Amino acid sequence: MFNTVKTLIESRISTGRYDASRPVSDEAVTELVRLATRAPSAYNFQNWKFITVRSPEAKARLQAVSYGQRQVVDAPVTFIICGTLAAYEGLPQALQPALDAGILQQATVDGWVAQAKDNHVANPQLQRDEAMRSASLAAMTLMFAAQGMGLSTGAMSGFDPAGVAQEFGLADHEIPVILITAGYPAEGNWPQKPRKALDEVMVLA
Amino acid sequence: MFNTVKTLIESRISTGRYDASRPVSDEAVTELVRLATRAPSAYNFQNWKFITVRSPEAKARLQAVSYGQRQVVDAPVTFIICGTLAAYEGLPQALQPALDAGILQQATVDGWVAQAKDNHVANPQLQRDEAMRSASLAAMTLMFAAQGMGLSTGAMSGFDPAGVAQEFGLADHEIPVILITAGYPAEGNWPQKPRKALDEVMVLA
Repeated sequence: MFNTVKTLIESRISTGRYDASRPVSDEAVTELVRLATRAPSAYNFQNWKFITVRSPEAKARLQAVSYGQRQVVDAPVTFIICGTLAAYEGLPQALQPALDAGILQQATVDGWVAQAKDNHVANPQLQRDEAMRSASLAAMTLMFAAQGMGLSTGAMSGFDPAGVAQEFGLADHEIPVILITAGYPAEGNWPQKPRKALDEVMVLA
Repeated sequence: MFNTVKTLIESRISTGRYDASRPVSDEAVTELVRLATRAPSAYNFQNWKFITVRSPEAKARLQAVSYGQRQVVDAPVTFIICGTLAAYEGLPQALQPALDAGILQQATVDGWVAQAKDNHVANPQLQRDEAMRSASLAAMTLMFAAQGMGLSTGAMSGFDPAGVAQEFGLADHEIPVILITAGYPAEGNWPQKPRKALDEVMVLA
């Protein structure tokens, strides 16, 4: 199993060129979102939202707020992954399935809800950080799931957040964090770029 | 391959209880960081730093700035994954290996460096968002790699960032984003908690 995971990680490329003639099915798109939501989040906030951009009309609108980058049009699907602010407000609803399943007790849920509110309510930077963390963890999970399906992906932070919010009707508390394109690669993509030496980024303690 | 990836994603739990008697080797810790650095980052910034907390002394210091949570002591290793601000300053160095390998041309590198500086230099929120994104994408990659090794992990955002920075000598531009504990699980961990219904978080466009 480790070899499979290692190969997935080492073979992932940031795909910019897609084969626009090869579609991705509705079922695959839904399954990718389902698996992405299995990512961890603080308190199990699940403070995210996934907009699946697939229609020509929606792709054109997304391209216009992504500095004209062509891959959001060529890729059969682009996921706009959003994080949500004030996640503590949605925590009771987010934990309801765990409560219903008997995994968490009501007292635990109540404790987490109170603690999350205490920590987050007066700290907008923490709310934003948590939105970035949750959405990014989900994005990486989605990319691995897509690779497992034989798809190639590209992560993009080059977009106009206010433009994306306006075009796709985001609420004030919904922050577009990252775009993930997915599909089958065309020719001309870069290989995975080599990384800095490990001793530049790793410290033993 | 999809079944392997699906199983990894669906079987991941947020581990809080570790078997403190089962170590993780130096080689495994290094390999986990190496694979984590294969995560994508904007412009290939690689704007991250990994502190591997393994000594009893360092674990005790980390526990003191993590609200006393026991898993950072019981887990054989905790990774403090940091993102770095002003990532554009380090971009020429980050892209040097891709230049040396002939994957990127000097003109491309120069263009990216100029563009990244333009976008980031006067935008501290974007710098912080990018630190959160890069470190979180690396964190999720590390968690999958660890699962591939048969290890269990836990993502923690419950720590005092200023305390972590002080205890582990972080520079002003280094932001602790997330802690990832890793090791072998003990009894008593929760299963993966069920998620919200998909139609609560997915929008088709």
